[in-house]
Amino acid sequence: MADEKKTRIAVEIYGQTYKIVGTETSSHMRLVASLVDDKMREISKRNPYLDSAKIAVLTAVNTVHDYLKLKDQLEQMEEELNKLKG
Amino acid sequence: MADEKKTRIAVEIYGQTYKIVGTETSSHMRLVASLVDDKMREISKRNPYLDSAKIAVLTAVNTVHDYLKLKDQLEQMEEELNKLKG
Repeated sequence: MADEKKTRIAVEIYGQTYKIVGTETSSHMRLVASLVDDKMREISKRNPYLDSAKIAVLTAVNTVHDYLKLKDQLEQMEEELNKLKG
Repeated sequence: MADEKKTRIAVEIYGQTYKIVGTETSSHMRLVASLVDDKMREISKRNPYLDSAKIAVLTAVNTVHDYLKLKDQLEQMEEELNKLKG
């Protein structure tokens, strides 16, 4: 969507600066960045020998896993909702 | 949970092998890995100048964003469900 208003901000994740672009508010984008930063630090604590590329990949793996679990929950709830609505 | 049965598999993501451990089935874990791989390749196509660590971080950023959107949906649905249940 070319004329949608875009937010461009710089965030710091795991010691690196990233310029990210999105249609969300900057506070939402900062929240996302800080969650990724937290998760990377948590994973690096448990795997101190891993380089940052691998830590980032494992962070993505964990998040996709959480996403799929949440999606399952959503689908179950949707089913329940449809039953209740008749 | 120490005595929960754990699955240990090797998966390939973006040209690197990762040993991942989880309590899920190996097919679920392979699905997660292939989704991360797809997402990394998609982001690298749009940003061919980025190194793999940055691509992985942006993949995590995108996934956390998707996760939060889904969580919003879930919370709205939960509210609707509670109203219907009285």
